[in-house]
Amino acid sequence: MLELYHAEPGANSMKCLHCLKEKGLDFVSHYVDLLRFEQHSPEFVKLNPNGQVPVLVHDGAIITESTVINEYLEDVFPEVPLRPANPVERARMRIFSKFVDEYFCPALSMWGWHIMVRKVAQSLKKDELEKILGQIPLKEQRDKWATVAGDSFTPAQLDDSRRKIVVSIDKMEKILGESRWLAGATYSLAEINAYPMVSGVRRIFPDILNEKSAPRTWAWLATVEERPATQAALAMPNKVPEVLRTFSD
Amino acid sequence: MLELYHAEPGANSMKCLHCLKEKGLDFVSHYVDLLRFEQHSPEFVKLNPNGQVPVLVHDGAIITESTVINEYLEDVFPEVPLRPANPVERARMRIFSKFVDEYFCPALSMWGWHIMVRKVAQSLKKDELEKILGQIPLKEQRDKWATVAGDSFTPAQLDDSRRKIVVSIDKMEKILGESRWLAGATYSLAEINAYPMVSGVRRIFPDILNEKSAPRTWAWLATVEERPATQAALAMPNKVPEVLRTFSD
Repeated sequence: MLELYHAEPGANSMKCLHCLKEKGLDFVSHYVDLLRFEQHSPEFVKLNPNGQVPVLVHDGAIITESTVINEYLEDVFPEVPLRPANPVERARMRIFSKFVDEYFCPALSMWGWHIMVRKVAQSLKKDELEKILGQIPLKEQRDKWATVAGDSFTPAQLDDSRRKIVVSIDKMEKILGESRWLAGATYSLAEINAYPMVSGVRRIFPDILNEKSAPRTWAWLATVEERPATQAALAMPNKVPEVLRTFSD
Repeated sequence: MLELYHAEPGANSMKCLHCLKEKGLDFVSHYVDLLRFEQHSPEFVKLNPNGQVPVLVHDGAIITESTVINEYLEDVFPEVPLRPANPVERARMRIFSKFVDEYFCPALSMWGWHIMVRKVAQSLKKDELEKILGQIPLKEQRDKWATVAGDSFTPAQLDDSRRKIVVSIDKMEKILGESRWLAGATYSLAEINAYPMVSGVRRIFPDILNEKSAPRTWAWLATVEERPATQAALAMPNKVPEVLRTFSD
Protein backbone atom coordinates (compact mmCIF):
# COMPACT_ATOMS: atom_id res chain seq x y z
CA MET A 1 0.00 0.00 0.00
CA LEU A 2 1.12 3.52 -0.87
CA GLU A 3 0.33 6.35 1.55
CA LEU A 4 1.33 10.00 1.26
CA TYR A 5 1.32 12.38 4.21
CA HIS A 6 1.14 15.84 2.66
CA ALA A 7 -0.20 19.37 3.02
CA GLU A 8 -1.98 21.44 0.35
CA PRO A 9 -0.83 21.06 -3.28
CA GLY A 10 1.99 23.59 -3.09
CA ALA A 11 5.74 23.58 -2.38
CA ASN A 12 7.26 20.21 -1.54
CA SER A 13 3.93 18.40 -1.02
CA MET A 14 2.94 19.28 -4.58
CA LYS A 15 6.08 17.64 -5.99
CA CYS A 16 5.03 14.20 -4.74
CA LEU A 17 1.29 14.60 -5.39
CA HIS A 18 2.19 15.61 -8.95
CA CYS A 19 4.53 12.64 -9.46
CA LEU A 20 1.95 10.16 -8.11
CA LYS A 21 -0.72 11.59 -10.43
CA GLU A 22 1.59 11.53 -13.50
CA LYS A 23 2.29 7.87 -12.78
CA GLY A 24 -1.40 7.13 -12.26
CA LEU A 25 -0.71 5.47 -8.90
CA ASP A 26 -3.43 4.90 -6.33
CA PHE A 27 -2.47 6.11 -2.86
CA VAL A 28 -4.05 6.84 0.49
CA SER A 29 -3.92 10.58 1.10
CA HIS A 30 -3.28 11.81 4.67
CA TYR A 31 -3.75 15.58 4.86
CA VAL A 32 -1.38 17.15 7.40
CA ASP A 33 -2.69 20.58 8.37
CA LEU A 34 0.36 22.77 8.80
CA LEU A 35 -1.74 25.63 10.15
CA ARG A 36 -2.84 23.34 12.97
CA PHE A 37 0.81 22.31 13.47
CA GLU A 38 0.00 18.65 12.88
CA GLN A 39 3.52 18.19 11.42
CA HIS A 40 4.94 18.68 14.94
CA SER A 41 2.57 16.22 16.64
CA PRO A 42 4.17 13.25 18.40
CA GLU A 43 2.41 10.84 15.98
CA PHE A 44 3.79 12.62 12.93
CA VAL A 45 7.29 13.02 14.39
CA LYS A 46 7.36 9.24 14.79
CA LEU A 47 7.06 9.06 10.97
CA ASN A 48 9.50 11.87 10.25
CA PRO A 49 11.70 13.02 13.16
CA ASN A 50 12.27 16.30 11.27
CA GLY A 51 8.53 17.12 11.51
CA GLN A 52 8.21 17.95 7.81
CA VAL A 53 5.92 16.95 4.95
CA PRO A 54 5.69 15.12 2.61
CA VAL A 55 6.32 11.56 3.80
CA LEU A 56 5.68 8.45 1.72
CA VAL A 57 4.87 5.15 3.40
CA HIS A 58 5.12 2.15 1.09
CA ASP A 59 4.19 -1.22 2.60
CA GLY A 60 5.51 0.07 5.93
CA ALA A 61 8.77 1.58 4.63
CA ILE A 62 9.05 5.30 5.39
CA ILE A 63 10.63 7.59 2.78
CA THR A 64 11.19 11.31 3.44
CA GLU A 65 12.46 14.24 1.32
CA SER A 66 10.26 15.07 -1.67
CA THR A 67 13.07 14.87 -4.25
CA VAL A 68 14.11 11.44 -2.95
CA ILE A 69 10.47 10.26 -2.77
CA ASN A 70 10.07 11.06 -6.48
CA GLU A 71 13.21 9.09 -7.40
CA TYR A 72 11.91 6.23 -5.22
CA LEU A 73 8.56 6.24 -7.05
CA GLU A 74 10.54 6.07 -10.29
CA ASP A 75 12.68 3.17 -9.04
CA VAL A 76 9.66 1.15 -7.90
CA PHE A 77 7.05 2.17 -10.51
CA PRO A 78 8.95 2.83 -13.74
CA GLU A 79 5.95 2.04 -16.01
CA VAL A 80 5.24 5.75 -16.67
CA PRO A 81 8.84 7.03 -16.81
CA LEU A 82 9.65 10.49 -15.44
CA ARG A 83 13.41 10.05 -15.60
CA PRO A 84 14.97 10.46 -19.05
CA ALA A 85 16.41 7.25 -20.51
CA ASN A 86 19.50 9.17 -21.69
CA PRO A 87 21.95 9.32 -18.73
CA VAL A 88 23.19 12.82 -19.63
CA GLU A 89 19.61 14.13 -19.53
CA ARG A 90 19.06 12.19 -16.32
CA ALA A 91 22.07 14.02 -14.81
CA ARG A 92 20.63 17.35 -15.99
CA MET A 93 17.34 16.43 -14.32
CA ARG A 94 19.20 15.82 -11.04
CA ILE A 95 21.33 18.98 -11.35
CA PHE A 96 18.22 21.12 -11.82
CA SER A 97 16.32 19.38 -9.01
CA LYS A 98 19.32 19.96 -6.73
CA PHE A 99 19.40 23.62 -7.75
CA VAL A 100 15.71 23.89 -6.83
CA ASP A 101 16.29 22.26 -3.44
CA GLU A 102 19.42 24.18 -2.49
CA TYR A 103 18.91 27.61 -4.06
CA PHE A 104 15.55 28.38 -5.67
CA CYS A 105 13.23 26.87 -3.05
CA PRO A 106 15.03 28.29 0.04
CA ALA A 107 15.00 31.77 -1.54
CA LEU A 108 11.28 31.61 -2.29
CA SER A 109 10.57 29.91 1.02
CA MET A 110 12.03 32.88 2.94
CA TRP A 111 9.38 35.07 1.30
CA GLY A 112 6.71 32.46 2.08
CA TRP A 113 7.71 32.60 5.74
CA HIS A 114 7.91 36.40 5.68
CA ILE A 115 4.47 36.82 4.11
CA MET A 116 2.44 33.84 5.30
CA VAL A 117 3.94 32.17 8.38
CA ARG A 118 4.58 35.65 9.83
CA LYS A 119 0.82 36.35 9.79
CA VAL A 120 0.19 33.07 11.60
CA ALA A 121 3.00 33.63 14.13
CA GLN A 122 1.85 37.17 14.92
CA SER A 123 -1.76 36.03 15.42
CA LEU A 124 -0.70 33.72 18.25
CA LYS A 125 -0.61 34.62 21.92
CA LYS A 126 2.81 34.44 23.55
CA ASP A 127 2.04 31.21 25.43
CA GLU A 128 0.61 29.57 22.29
CA LEU A 129 3.78 30.48 20.38
CA GLU A 130 6.00 29.13 23.18
CA LYS A 131 4.08 25.86 23.13
CA ILE A 132 4.49 25.53 19.35
CA LEU A 133 8.19 26.37 19.48
CA GLY A 134 8.66 23.73 22.16
CA GLN A 135 7.26 21.03 19.85
CA ILE A 136 9.34 21.79 16.74
CA PRO A 137 12.05 19.15 16.41
CA LEU A 138 14.49 20.98 14.08
CA LYS A 139 16.45 23.95 15.47
CA GLU A 140 16.46 25.56 12.00
CA GLN A 141 12.64 25.51 11.93
CA ARG A 142 12.35 26.83 15.50
CA ASP A 143 14.69 29.69 14.57
CA LYS A 144 12.56 30.59 11.54
CA TRP A 145 9.40 30.65 13.67
CA ALA A 146 11.12 32.88 16.24
CA THR A 147 12.35 35.15 13.42
CA VAL A 148 8.94 35.70 11.83
CA ALA A 149 7.24 36.05 15.22
CA GLY A 150 9.70 38.89 15.89
CA ASP A 151 11.08 41.43 13.41
CA SER A 152 11.23 38.88 10.58
CA PHE A 153 14.17 38.61 8.16
CA THR A 154 16.26 41.71 7.48
CA PRO A 155 15.69 43.77 4.32
CA ALA A 156 19.16 42.64 3.17
CA GLN A 157 18.19 38.96 3.58
CA LEU A 158 14.89 39.46 1.75
CA ASP A 159 16.60 41.39 -1.06
CA ASP A 160 19.18 38.66 -1.46
CA SER A 161 16.44 36.03 -1.68
CA ARG A 162 14.64 38.12 -4.27
CA ARG A 163 17.88 38.31 -6.26
CA LYS A 164 18.18 34.51 -6.10
CA ILE A 165 14.64 34.15 -7.41
CA VAL A 166 15.58 36.37 -10.38
CA VAL A 167 18.70 34.22 -10.95
CA SER A 168 16.51 31.08 -10.85
CA ILE A 169 14.04 32.35 -13.44
CA ASP A 170 16.93 33.59 -15.64
CA LYS A 171 18.48 30.13 -15.47
CA MET A 172 15.18 28.57 -16.58
CA GLU A 173 14.90 31.02 -19.49
CA LYS A 174 18.41 30.08 -20.60
CA ILE A 175 17.82 26.31 -20.36
CA LEU A 176 14.42 26.52 -22.07
CA GLY A 177 16.08 28.49 -24.88
CA GLU A 178 18.33 25.49 -25.51
CA SER A 179 16.00 22.52 -24.96
CA ARG A 180 12.33 21.65 -24.94
CA TRP A 181 12.26 20.75 -21.24
CA LEU A 182 14.50 21.46 -18.26
CA ALA A 183 16.52 18.23 -18.61
CA GLY A 184 16.48 18.10 -22.42
CA ALA A 185 14.02 16.47 -24.81
CA THR A 186 12.03 14.63 -22.10
CA TYR A 187 9.37 15.89 -19.67
CA SER A 188 10.86 14.76 -16.38
CA LEU A 189 11.04 15.08 -12.61
CA ALA A 190 12.90 18.37 -13.25
CA GLU A 191 9.56 19.86 -14.35
CA ILE A 192 7.69 18.32 -11.43
CA ASN A 193 10.27 19.43 -8.86
CA ALA A 194 10.43 22.99 -10.23
CA TYR A 195 6.74 23.55 -10.90
CA PRO A 196 5.48 24.57 -7.42
CA MET A 197 8.33 27.06 -7.00
CA VAL A 198 7.73 28.67 -10.40
CA SER A 199 4.01 28.82 -9.66
CA GLY A 200 4.86 30.47 -6.32
CA VAL A 201 6.97 33.12 -8.07
CA ARG A 202 4.07 33.94 -10.40
CA ARG A 203 1.90 34.46 -7.32
CA ILE A 204 4.31 36.44 -5.11
CA PHE A 205 6.41 38.26 -7.74
CA PRO A 206 4.36 38.93 -10.88
CA ASP A 207 6.99 41.54 -11.81
CA ILE A 208 9.70 38.86 -11.99
CA LEU A 209 7.63 36.26 -13.84
CA ASN A 210 5.22 37.36 -16.52
CA GLU A 211 4.71 36.81 -20.23
CA LYS A 212 7.13 39.60 -21.18
CA SER A 213 9.83 39.25 -18.53
CA ALA A 214 10.30 35.49 -18.92
CA PRO A 215 8.36 34.29 -21.97
CA ARG A 216 9.81 30.78 -22.13
CA THR A 217 9.18 30.06 -18.46
CA TRP A 218 5.70 31.54 -18.82
CA ALA A 219 4.94 29.22 -21.74
CA TRP A 220 6.52 26.27 -19.86
CA LEU A 221 4.21 26.97 -16.90
CA ALA A 222 1.13 26.93 -19.16
CA THR A 223 2.20 23.65 -20.80
CA VAL A 224 2.84 22.00 -17.44
CA GLU A 225 -0.54 23.20 -16.16
CA GLU A 226 -2.42 21.82 -19.17
CA ARG A 227 -1.48 18.28 -18.19
CA PRO A 228 -4.29 16.29 -16.57
CA ALA A 229 -1.91 15.03 -13.86
CA THR A 230 -1.01 18.60 -12.86
CA GLN A 231 -4.69 19.50 -12.68
CA ALA A 232 -5.50 16.39 -10.66
CA ALA A 233 -2.74 17.20 -8.18
CA LEU A 234 -3.83 20.84 -7.91
CA ALA A 235 -7.38 19.64 -7.19
CA MET A 236 -6.26 17.91 -3.99
CA PRO A 237 -7.58 19.38 -0.72
CA ASN A 238 -6.34 22.82 0.29
CA LYS A 239 -7.30 24.06 3.76
CA VAL A 240 -5.14 27.21 3.58
CA PRO A 241 -7.28 30.37 3.62
CA GLU A 242 -6.84 32.49 0.47
CA VAL A 243 -5.18 35.30 2.46
CA LEU A 244 -2.39 32.99 3.60
CA ARG A 245 -1.60 31.34 0.28
CA THR A 246 1.86 31.80 -1.17
CA PHE A 247 2.91 28.64 -2.97
CA SER A 248 -0.52 27.28 -3.87
CA ASP A 249 -3.24 28.91 -5.94
CA MET B 1 36.66 8.95 -22.95
CA LEU B 2 36.23 9.83 -19.26
CA GLU B 3 37.94 12.93 -17.89
CA LEU B 4 37.72 14.34 -14.37
CA TYR B 5 38.66 17.90 -13.50
CA HIS B 6 39.37 17.84 -9.78
CA ALA B 7 41.46 19.28 -6.97
CA GLU B 8 43.28 17.32 -4.23
CA PRO B 9 41.57 14.19 -2.84
CA GLY B 10 39.42 16.00 -0.28
CA ALA B 11 35.89 17.43 -0.06
CA ASN B 12 33.81 17.15 -3.23
CA SER B 13 36.70 16.20 -5.53
CA MET B 14 37.37 13.15 -3.35
CA LYS B 15 33.76 11.94 -3.77
CA CYS B 16 34.21 11.44 -7.53
CA LEU B 17 37.83 10.21 -7.40
CA HIS B 18 36.68 7.64 -4.85
CA CYS B 19 33.70 6.52 -6.96
CA LEU B 20 35.86 6.18 -10.11
CA LYS B 21 38.42 4.10 -8.21
CA GLU B 22 35.74 1.83 -6.64
CA LYS B 23 34.38 1.18 -10.09
CA GLY B 24 37.87 0.56 -11.50
CA LEU B 25 37.28 3.04 -14.33
CA ASP B 26 40.16 4.53 -16.32
CA PHE B 27 39.97 8.29 -16.59
CA VAL B 28 42.12 11.23 -17.60
CA SER B 29 42.89 13.29 -14.50
CA HIS B 30 43.04 17.09 -14.85
CA TYR B 31 44.32 18.66 -11.65
CA VAL B 32 42.74 22.06 -10.99
CA ASP B 33 44.88 23.99 -8.54
CA LEU B 34 42.46 25.90 -6.32
CA LEU B 35 45.30 27.80 -4.64
CA ARG B 36 46.27 29.18 -8.07
CA PHE B 37 42.57 30.00 -8.70
CA GLU B 38 42.49 27.83 -11.82
CA GLN B 39 38.80 27.12 -11.10
CA HIS B 40 38.02 30.75 -12.00
CA SER B 41 40.02 30.77 -15.24
CA PRO B 42 38.08 31.52 -18.45
CA GLU B 43 38.89 28.02 -19.81
CA PHE B 44 37.53 26.31 -16.70
CA VAL B 45 34.45 28.52 -16.48
CA LYS B 46 33.60 27.39 -20.02
CA LEU B 47 33.32 23.86 -18.59
CA ASN B 48 31.47 24.87 -15.42
CA PRO B 49 30.01 28.39 -15.33
CA ASN B 50 29.91 28.12 -11.51
CA GLY B 51 33.72 27.86 -11.40
CA GLN B 52 33.69 24.82 -9.12
CA VAL B 53 35.30 21.37 -9.09
CA PRO B 54 34.78 18.51 -9.76
CA VAL B 55 33.58 18.30 -13.37
CA LEU B 56 33.23 15.07 -15.34
CA VAL B 57 33.53 15.09 -19.12
CA HIS B 58 32.33 11.89 -20.77
CA ASP B 59 32.72 11.72 -24.54
CA GLY B 60 32.18 15.48 -24.65
CA ALA B 61 29.16 15.62 -22.29
CA ILE B 62 29.82 17.83 -19.26
CA ILE B 63 28.44 16.75 -15.88
CA THR B 64 28.78 18.93 -12.76
CA GLU B 65 27.89 18.48 -9.06
CA SER B 66 29.78 15.67 -7.34
CA THR B 67 26.67 13.89 -6.03
CA VAL B 68 25.10 13.92 -9.50
CA ILE B 69 28.38 12.83 -11.14
CA ASN B 70 28.43 9.75 -8.88
CA GLU B 71 24.82 8.84 -9.81
CA TYR B 72 25.77 9.36 -13.49
CA LEU B 73 28.74 7.00 -13.16
CA GLU B 74 26.35 4.48 -11.63
CA ASP B 75 23.83 4.91 -14.47
CA VAL B 76 26.47 4.46 -17.19
CA PHE B 77 28.86 1.98 -15.52
CA PRO B 78 26.72 -0.24 -13.27
CA GLU B 79 29.12 -3.22 -13.40
CA VAL B 80 30.53 -2.49 -9.93
CA PRO B 81 27.32 -1.32 -8.23
CA LEU B 82 27.47 1.42 -5.60
CA ARG B 83 23.70 1.93 -5.40
CA PRO B 84 21.81 -0.65 -3.33
CA ALA B 85 19.52 -2.92 -5.38
CA ASN B 86 16.78 -2.52 -2.74
CA PRO B 87 14.86 0.71 -3.53
CA VAL B 88 14.30 1.56 0.15
CA GLU B 89 18.05 1.38 0.80
CA ARG B 90 18.61 3.36 -2.39
CA ALA B 91 16.33 6.09 -1.01
CA ARG B 92 18.27 6.04 2.27
CA MET B 93 21.48 6.45 0.28
CA ARG B 94 20.02 9.54 -1.40
CA ILE B 95 18.60 10.97 1.83
CA PHE B 96 21.99 10.72 3.52
CA SER B 97 23.84 12.13 0.50
CA LYS B 98 21.39 15.05 0.46
CA PHE B 99 21.96 15.61 4.17
CA VAL B 100 25.72 15.73 3.52
CA ASP B 101 25.28 18.25 0.68
CA GLU B 102 22.79 20.52 2.42
CA TYR B 103 23.81 20.37 6.08
CA PHE B 104 27.00 18.51 7.00
CA CYS B 105 29.27 19.76 4.19
CA PRO B 106 28.28 23.46 4.38
CA ALA B 107 28.84 23.42 8.16
CA LEU B 108 32.29 21.88 7.83
CA SER B 109 33.07 24.01 4.79
CA MET B 110 32.56 27.21 6.81
CA TRP B 111 35.38 26.06 9.10
CA GLY B 112 37.50 25.13 6.07
CA TRP B 113 37.06 28.68 4.76
CA HIS B 114 37.69 30.16 8.21
CA ILE B 115 40.89 28.17 8.78
CA MET B 116 42.37 27.63 5.33
CA VAL B 117 40.98 30.04 2.74
CA ARG B 118 41.33 32.85 5.30
CA LYS B 119 45.10 32.27 5.42
CA VAL B 120 45.23 32.45 1.63
CA ALA B 121 43.01 35.54 1.43
CA GLN B 122 44.99 37.38 4.08
CA SER B 123 48.30 36.59 2.35
CA LEU B 124 47.17 38.43 -0.78
CA LYS B 125 47.81 42.09 -1.54
CA LYS B 126 44.70 44.23 -1.92
CA ASP B 127 44.98 44.45 -5.74
CA GLU B 128 45.56 40.68 -6.04
CA LEU B 129 42.43 40.04 -3.96
CA GLU B 130 40.39 42.49 -6.06
CA LYS B 131 41.52 40.72 -9.22
CA ILE B 132 40.54 37.30 -7.84
CA LEU B 133 37.15 38.55 -6.62
CA GLY B 134 36.50 40.00 -10.08
CA GLN B 135 36.95 36.57 -11.69
CA ILE B 136 34.68 34.54 -9.38
CA PRO B 137 31.43 33.80 -11.22
CA LEU B 138 29.15 32.96 -8.24
CA LYS B 139 28.11 35.81 -5.91
CA GLU B 140 27.97 33.35 -2.99
CA GLN B 141 31.63 32.44 -3.55
CA ARG B 142 32.68 36.09 -3.93
CA ASP B 143 30.93 36.89 -0.66
CA LYS B 144 32.75 34.10 1.16
CA TRP B 145 36.13 35.33 -0.13
CA ALA B 146 35.29 38.86 0.99
CA THR B 147 34.20 37.52 4.40
CA VAL B 148 37.38 35.58 5.10
CA ALA B 149 39.58 38.38 3.73
CA GLY B 150 37.91 40.64 6.31
CA ASP B 151 36.78 39.75 9.83
CA SER B 152 35.68 36.22 8.79
CA PHE B 153 32.46 34.60 10.00
CA THR B 154 31.02 35.66 13.35
CA PRO B 155 31.59 33.55 16.46
CA ALA B 156 27.83 32.81 16.42
CA GLN B 157 28.03 31.52 12.82
CA LEU B 158 31.07 29.38 13.59
CA ASP B 159 29.45 28.01 16.77
CA ASP B 160 26.31 27.11 14.86
CA SER B 161 28.35 25.29 12.22
CA ARG B 162 30.21 23.41 14.94
CA ARG B 163 26.83 22.43 16.43
CA LYS B 164 25.74 21.12 13.01
CA ILE B 165 28.91 19.04 12.75
CA VAL B 166 28.07 17.47 16.14
CA VAL B 167 24.50 16.80 14.90
CA SER B 168 25.96 15.17 11.75
CA ILE B 169 28.26 12.82 13.65
CA ASP B 170 25.44 11.98 16.11
CA LYS B 171 23.21 11.09 13.16
CA MET B 172 25.89 8.77 11.79
CA GLU B 173 26.30 7.09 15.18
CA LYS B 174 22.55 6.48 15.30
CA ILE B 175 22.34 5.08 11.76
CA LEU B 176 25.43 2.90 12.21
CA GLY B 177 23.86 1.51 15.41
CA GLU B 178 20.96 0.26 13.31
CA SER B 179 22.63 -0.93 10.10
CA ARG B 180 26.02 -2.06 8.82
CA TRP B 181 26.37 0.88 6.41
CA LEU B 182 24.77 4.32 6.08
CA ALA B 183 22.08 3.15 3.63
CA GLY B 184 21.54 -0.30 5.14
CA ALA B 185 23.24 -3.61 4.36
CA THR B 186 25.14 -2.36 1.28
CA TYR B 187 28.32 -0.28 0.99
CA SER B 188 27.09 2.55 -1.22
CA LEU B 189 27.52 6.08 -2.52
CA ALA B 190 26.34 7.22 0.94
CA GLU B 191 29.75 6.09 2.29
CA ILE B 192 31.62 7.69 -0.61
CA ASN B 193 29.73 10.98 -0.36
CA ALA B 194 30.14 11.20 3.42
CA TYR B 195 33.75 10.02 3.71
CA PRO B 196 35.67 13.24 2.94
CA MET B 197 33.51 15.23 5.37
CA VAL B 198 33.98 12.70 8.19
CA SER B 199 37.69 12.62 7.49
CA GLY B 200 37.68 16.44 7.65
CA VAL B 201 35.97 16.38 11.06
CA ARG B 202 38.64 14.01 12.40
CA ARG B 203 41.28 16.49 11.21
CA ILE B 204 39.69 19.76 12.39
CA PHE B 205 37.69 18.60 15.41
CA PRO B 206 39.40 15.61 17.07
CA ASP B 207 37.30 16.39 20.16
CA ILE B 208 34.06 15.75 18.23
CA LEU B 209 35.23 12.62 16.42
CA ASN B 210 37.44 10.15 18.23
CA GLU B 211 37.32 6.50 19.24
CA LYS B 212 35.46 7.27 22.50
CA SER B 213 33.12 10.10 21.42
CA ALA B 214 31.78 8.35 18.29
CA PRO B 215 32.99 4.74 18.27
CA ARG B 216 30.80 3.53 15.39
CA THR B 217 31.76 6.40 13.09
CA TRP B 218 35.38 5.90 14.08
CA ALA B 219 35.22 2.20 13.16
CA TRP B 220 33.32 3.05 9.94
CA LEU B 221 36.10 5.47 8.96
CA ALA B 222 38.75 2.79 9.48
CA THR B 223 36.79 0.26 7.41
CA VAL B 224 36.27 2.74 4.57
CA GLU B 225 39.98 3.63 4.64
CA GLU B 226 41.07 -0.01 4.46
CA ARG B 227 39.54 -0.33 1.00
CA PRO B 228 42.04 -0.30 -1.87
CA ALA B 229 39.83 2.15 -3.82
CA THR B 230 39.88 4.65 -0.95
CA GLN B 231 43.65 4.36 -0.72
CA ALA B 232 44.04 4.76 -4.49
CA ALA B 233 41.88 7.91 -4.45
CA LEU B 234 43.78 9.34 -1.46
CA ALA B 235 47.05 8.73 -3.33
CA MET B 236 46.03 11.13 -6.10
CA PRO B 237 48.08 14.36 -6.37
CA ASN B 238 47.77 16.90 -3.57
CA LYS B 239 49.44 20.27 -4.09
CA VAL B 240 48.01 21.82 -0.91
CA PRO B 241 50.78 22.64 1.61
CA GLU B 242 50.36 20.77 4.90
CA VAL B 243 49.66 24.00 6.80
CA LEU B 244 46.61 24.72 4.65
CA ARG B 245 45.02 21.26 4.69
CA THR B 246 41.58 20.91 6.21
CA PHE B 247 39.63 18.27 4.32
CA SER B 248 42.56 16.20 2.99
CA ASP B 249 45.26 14.41 4.98
